[in-house]
Amino acid sequence: MSETINQAHFGEHLTLDGYGGSYEKLNDRELVLSCLSDLPKKLGMHPLAEPVIYAAADNQLRDPGGWSGFVVIAESHISIHTFPKRRFVSIDAYTCKNGFDPSIIERYFQEAFSLEDMETNFIKRGTKYPVENIFE
Amino acid sequence: MSETINQAHFGEHLTLDGYGGSYEKLNDRELVLSCLSDLPKKLGMHPLAEPVIYAAADNQLRDPGGWSGFVVIAESHISIHTFPKRRFVSIDAYTCKNGFDPSIIERYFQEAFSLEDMETNFIKRGTKYPVENIFE
Repeated sequence: MSETINQAHFGEHLTLDGYGGSYEKLNDRELVLSCLSDLPKKLGMHPLAEPVIYAAADNQLRDPGGWSGFVVIAESHISIHTFPKRRFVSIDAYTCKNGFDPSIIERYFQEAFSLEDMETNFIKRGTKYPVENIFE
Repeated sequence: MSETINQAHFGEHLTLDGYGGSYEKLNDRELVLSCLSDLPKKLGMHPLAEPVIYAAADNQLRDPGGWSGFVVIAESHISIHTFPKRRFVSIDAYTCKNGFDPSIIERYFQEAFSLEDMETNFIKRGTKYPVENIFE
């Protein structure tokens, strides 16, 4: 694939679902927040605002509660949803800087939450993104 | 695939990248916000908080600016990044209610932003999600 084509897609999106994580780490509000501040710096991304984080309550069903955090990057995002009681975390890292190495993000979260196993998808977003403005 | 296996995955995630949208609609802060309030209701999802929206500035390069908004649902999210000058929008609708019909979401955004074309990915998230709590 030529460099021109690589440049043309809008962004790259890694979904990462992690299993067997540490209950304590997945339940640690400050740790989730610090990942949302720290990872954009590591990847050279520029947040538009401070991360936000919410507590999700146990609904006694499929969702046993945890932390849900989000940071908006210019113009993409990172999100983290943790489920400490299931040792599960569901993460999105969407960047409009192309060519990043997904293994850096995988390793980062594997270490942060002590994940035993993970499942990832790597998606090229906006493959027909116009390279020039249509309106000025 | 048996129903048991269908139930086992954690959630479903639609990525939708839309082209040829209306400049006015993609540039309309209130419209982006109202999609983030309205769509969860249509899908029977329960937001944890009000939607948040930020203006992203034109960086004179690949990113000509637009609106970036998201709403955190228990426990998943919807995000919208608009690029009016490129008539482009990049959307994620991630829900932990399984079995939703992606075409409802596609039609919803096609109409909301008058999209001429779109590119989607449908991802089953957390296919090994534990159906019971590991910790109580």
